[in-house]
Amino acid sequence: MNNLLKDKPQIINIGIADFYRDLKLNHASALHVEWRPPLVNDTELQKKLFLNIDKIKAANKVAITKILAARPTLIGMDLAINVIPKMEKNLILHAGPPVTWERMCGPMKGAVLGALIYEGMAKNIEEAQKLVVSGKIKFAPCHEHCCVGPMAGIISPSMPVFIIENFEHKNKSFATMNEGLGKVLRYGAYDTPVIERLRWMKDVLYPVLKDAIQASGGIDLKSIIAQALHMGDEVHNRNRAGTSLFYRQITPFILQTCKSNQNAIDVLNFINGNDHFFLNLSMAQAKASLDAGKGVKYSSLLVVMARNGTDFGIQLSGTGNTWFVGKALVPDALYFPGFTKADANPDIGDSAITETAGLGGFAMAASPAIVQFVGGKSEDATNFTLKMYEITESENNIYQIPYLNFRGTPTGIDVLKVVEKNILPVINTGVAHKNPGIGQVGAGVLSAPVEPFINAYQEFIKSL
Amino acid sequence: MNNLLKDKPQIINIGIADFYRDLKLNHASALHVEWRPPLVNDTELQKKLFLNIDKIKAANKVAITKILAARPTLIGMDLAINVIPKMEKNLILHAGPPVTWERMCGPMKGAVLGALIYEGMAKNIEEAQKLVVSGKIKFAPCHEHCCVGPMAGIISPSMPVFIIENFEHKNKSFATMNEGLGKVLRYGAYDTPVIERLRWMKDVLYPVLKDAIQASGGIDLKSIIAQALHMGDEVHNRNRAGTSLFYRQITPFILQTCKSNQNAIDVLNFINGNDHFFLNLSMAQAKASLDAGKGVKYSSLLVVMARNGTDFGIQLSGTGNTWFVGKALVPDALYFPGFTKADANPDIGDSAITETAGLGGFAMAASPAIVQFVGGKSEDATNFTLKMYEITESENNIYQIPYLNFRGTPTGIDVLKVVEKNILPVINTGVAHKNPGIGQVGAGVLSAPVEPFINAYQEFIKSL
Repeated sequence: MNNLLKDKPQIINIGIADFYRDLKLNHASALHVEWRPPLVNDTELQKKLFLNIDKIKAANKVAITKILAARPTLIGMDLAINVIPKMEKNLILHAGPPVTWERMCGPMKGAVLGALIYEGMAKNIEEAQKLVVSGKIKFAPCHEHCCVGPMAGIISPSMPVFIIENFEHKNKSFATMNEGLGKVLRYGAYDTPVIERLRWMKDVLYPVLKDAIQASGGIDLKSIIAQALHMGDEVHNRNRAGTSLFYRQITPFILQTCKSNQNAIDVLNFINGNDHFFLNLSMAQAKASLDAGKGVKYSSLLVVMARNGTDFGIQLSGTGNTWFVGKALVPDALYFPGFTKADANPDIGDSAITETAGLGGFAMAASPAIVQFVGGKSEDATNFTLKMYEITESENNIYQIPYLNFRGTPTGIDVLKVVEKNILPVINTGVAHKNPGIGQVGAGVLSAPVEPFINAYQEFIKSL
Repeated sequence: MNNLLKDKPQIINIGIADFYRDLKLNHASALHVEWRPPLVNDTELQKKLFLNIDKIKAANKVAITKILAARPTLIGMDLAINVIPKMEKNLILHAGPPVTWERMCGPMKGAVLGALIYEGMAKNIEEAQKLVVSGKIKFAPCHEHCCVGPMAGIISPSMPVFIIENFEHKNKSFATMNEGLGKVLRYGAYDTPVIERLRWMKDVLYPVLKDAIQASGGIDLKSIIAQALHMGDEVHNRNRAGTSLFYRQITPFILQTCKSNQNAIDVLNFINGNDHFFLNLSMAQAKASLDAGKGVKYSSLLVVMARNGTDFGIQLSGTGNTWFVGKALVPDALYFPGFTKADANPDIGDSAITETAGLGGFAMAASPAIVQFVGGKSEDATNFTLKMYEITESENNIYQIPYLNFRGTPTGIDVLKVVEKNILPVINTGVAHKNPGIGQVGAGVLSAPVEPFINAYQEFIKSL
């Protein structure tokens, strides 16, 4: 004891980093351990968790093995009404967890109204609004129909969709074609050029791509994404490489099958003009992979993370179709000139499915150039990825990060780790204006909100 | 003095790193300074250099400013005989500094013989050999005709070439189209499929690309390369992104101008099947940029680094058309299965023009995935780039490295810095089999040899 007081102290600082910074400023030798109190502190729950931990671990192994083994392949295209399970003529699918018309955010409302005009169910916005209020239109989450949609994520019956089949488990997923940037339906814009573009996409882009995909015999999305990660994409907010590789692969088949030279040129210029074209395919491959990991009893892994612009919702493999929700946050983003956080809608879109599958924010270390779009320095990108290893079950077997010596991306978010370590998933995202009809106002990296994870943690343990 | 002996020593280790490693192994606190004796130690030369250093510094500023300001643009295609300055019917251009037939290495001899068959000047190898020995064929370096060629770098009169114009300084450069991997002329292969491929390239690929390039109004190579560096290329040994971006840009113009659908499909499949297709364009843009920096009196910057498989040669801006040469080394490479260093030809090709322009080995930090092709770990790639800042005049104004927070690539090799710091340029390279007709046997990162730099340093100072 005497010695303890006489000798120089050896300092380990746990938790609050400010104390450590002070020590360093005063030239004291100290070690810092990053630690935060868990999000939930409930002895009863912890006891129950402890008693069940072996079967949870075993279940998580089963779920992640299925997710990693998936082989999502683009096999074709069709109209939503023809192929999406339980799609109906008066049903509109949207991003995120379930939400009523009344609680929908501005951009989602705008996109719904635009979709009704596109469908020919309304001649103008006033008619579309009346139709919605009449109660004749039903709404459901994309996720409940094997679909995913970026931002508002609206899928209406006569929209063309990509068909992705997971060859390993035979499940399918679906996604619309990406419209490009600027004023587009998914950001809530609905004026005439937006509707006209959607009609051109149905009349020209869709048949050309449909024929080409059929002639290709199927396009292996996992291979494209693996290469894109070696080429600076994280395939959520940066898709330049994915789009380039898809373009290279599909073009010869377009030339083979398209009878109109002008249509082929228009289609190729459209894809070439939009580096985000691959995003919807990246999302659909993530959905097809994660759906394979659904329904594994006792598994605490996330299979869905999605936002509707009002709520942020997650689903776990082990808790079936239950949504655990919380308020969607407004992102601290890099705003486009002329816009601020005050203009921003809370976080929106199914695109967080990429993070749920070990891509996007989780793969940012593969994409240092993205910081020019979302803000920060290149080492921030690396640090985001490194942190996500703390809350994931596994390292991806196919998706690698060259800069981390080809380490697999952190994959399979475990709600137990999120709560215990108090580390929330990071999500790369575009930011929509809160009013319909305006479009994108920024992009950034944001942290998921705590509530859905606390809710999921509690309900998961109670269900054991 | 007494205190000096009583106190713990503070150690700074300069030079030999082994001493430092021993100190660290014995837990001594020490600082290591990387230092090596200069390559040349000549007091007379150093005095003269000292007296002229201000005008050298000023000249180097002029040279690098010109090099960085270049705007190399792909403006068209034609046959070599029609456009390359002083091209002649019986002239064969080759990579590297001048070399006689007798001193040519195996792969270069093979490529020359193949070119004579391709030209219809010989029916077979025996005839071609007789023709060369007869003395009727003249040889000259590509570099002396505003050209660059990868590996053997053979350009014969009726080969189609890309025409690159530097819009800023109005000089032009030329390069053939890349043939792909495997058995190809540039690696010294000359059998029937090689010659047939070259004929197809002239009869189909060339006219299709020529028309498309013309319709495009010119393709900005600097913009493609700047993007490719953000996408994991260093545009010497990794050109997947550059090839993809070129493909995306040229395809709509191919569709616009090509009357045969089958030819368009074949051309696109050919480009799509060869991720090195962009290499020759990357080299030609480097040549067009560096030629703009030639002939600046008193400038010690390199404007050429090139190898013919026998000799390694460099040219300085301030010493006109003089070649400074030394023996080309056999690379320590990552050899393909079944091959070893014993099979390898010494270093060959004009492709080191990319390093001379701040790309290739100098931009490896942008290309961590390349270590799978050339060996090493991703941090090695970063370290190569960091070291090259030591011997270069400037950081590139356009070509950036995202992982180094968008720092410009090290550009403008200064022979004075190379000699004084004893740090040699690193070069990413493919390795040819030493016998003609076999092809590539590996790839690696190698250091330039010392002799050309010592020679250039001495002659440069004497010329002041």
